[in-house]
Amino acid sequence: MSRIRIGQGIDFHQLVEGRDFWLGGVLVPHHKGALGHSDADVLLHAVCDAMLGALALGDIGVHFPDTDNTYKNIDSKILLARCAQLIGEKGYQVVNIDSTLCLQAPKIKPYVPQMQAIIAGILRVTVEDVSIKATTTEQMGFVGREEGVMAYATVLLEKMAQ
Amino acid sequence: MSRIRIGQGIDFHQLVEGRDFWLGGVLVPHHKGALGHSDADVLLHAVCDAMLGALALGDIGVHFPDTDNTYKNIDSKILLARCAQLIGEKGYQVVNIDSTLCLQAPKIKPYVPQMQAIIAGILRVTVEDVSIKATTTEQMGFVGREEGVMAYATVLLEKMAQ
Amino acid sequence: MSRIRIGQGIDFHQLVEGRDFWLGGVLVPHHKGALGHSDADVLLHAVCDAMLGALALGDIGVHFPDTDNTYKNIDSKILLARCAQLIGEKGYQVVNIDSTLCLQAPKIKPYVPQMQAIIAGILRVTVEDVSIKATTTEQMGFVGREEGVMAYATVLLEKMAQ
Ligand SMILES: [Zn+2]
Ligand SMILES: [Zn+2]
Ligand SMILES: [Zn+2]
Repeated sequence: MSRIRIGQGIDFHQLVEGRDFWLGGVLVPHHKGALGHSDADVLLHAVCDAMLGALALGDIGVHFPDTDNTYKNIDSKILLARCAQLIGEKGYQVVNIDSTLCLQAPKIKPYVPQMQAIIAGILRVTVEDVSIKATTTEQMGFVGREEGVMAYATVLLEKMAQ
Repeated sequence: MSRIRIGQGIDFHQLVEGRDFWLGGVLVPHHKGALGHSDADVLLHAVCDAMLGALALGDIGVHFPDTDNTYKNIDSKILLARCAQLIGEKGYQVVNIDSTLCLQAPKIKPYVPQMQAIIAGILRVTVEDVSIKATTTEQMGFVGREEGVMAYATVLLEKMAQ
Repeated sequence: MSRIRIGQGIDFHQLVEGRDFWLGGVLVPHHKGALGHSDADVLLHAVCDAMLGALALGDIGVHFPDTDNTYKNIDSKILLARCAQLIGEKGYQVVNIDSTLCLQAPKIKPYVPQMQAIIAGILRVTVEDVSIKATTTEQMGFVGREEGVMAYATVLLEKMAQ
């Protein structure tokens, strides 16, 4: 396989009352949280999918099926660590990640440095290699109506020196 | 032009009764199919656009206009082969492709290996260089209501050795 | 930081009567325009975000907050030039950009060469390094109802030779 590889991930979760809101490994205070089998961390899921996709290792649904009780309410940081292990076993490491969270509320800017530190720590890269951006959808669609959140991530991997 | 180039593609199609459902070059059994001038293969179209975009060759609408009867119900594998030819003429080849299909139903996991083999065959790369992931939108939006499908693709191209 | 970096950007704006419609630095004749604090150029904003994201420099909302009157109705070409300066200060330059505009109307194909020339000029790359594609969403969602527009961009940066 080539030395440099590209990957991308997209994820969606509904927002509902009575759930914790995990984003980028951080518990974000909010009156709603993301619904899902795991902790429903939309950003970590998009990053996992981008890493798996870069090496055609399938997707998060293949590796961590929501029909498997092992993954019920699981901390997605564990899933990210597993993805890091999978790409490491193939001889690859993350060059850099760029991502965008699409959500109408709350403002996540204060939590970004903590999210970067968590992801960088798991992937053993620097925080400058983990970019997290955010945008609203300007009140449009299911994100704009605060019914859900989505996240996009792209990643560049490179073959590790032997 | 630079040795390494990035491309991305996005495509959307309505799902309607009475149409075949082509995805990644495979006829997927389903009670609906994608509506379009060609065979409406949303995944192949996103991949075509990513390849064209990496070299700023325009987009699928420019190369294969839906006002041209030549492309009426055309097999999108023919369009993909044409895109491969176009980038080859510019001296480039595909390094790897990563893609995500967003659809609520049916489960496409059983068809992924066949889709990978078809795309890899046309692009003369290995199946490990063609990643196809899938996600629902958690019942949200037009994809969640099964009114349509969308697909995203990213591609890395590199200049061929002379 | 690594020699090659990947970035991506996504942006959304509502379409309303009585606003100019700026896309890719070009004033596109249309009965609606994009709503926003700046000139609301969805394509330039996605490109800015991709460039900032590739170096983890934050996002357009961080650099040019819509609570700051400095940026009221500002020409987004000025924001793009500022992003180019920021990546230049870090020692990076654009390899290539690929982007997709999602809008139902009008047809933007006639304006693409002008958009490419404007962006390439600001970023000091050739027009072949700035790809602009367009697609409708096939009448689906807020884009399909002509309530809004969205744009996606990916970018590859490389470290400049010393
Ligand atoms: Zn998820
Ligand atoms: Zn299509
Ligand atoms: Zn904007």
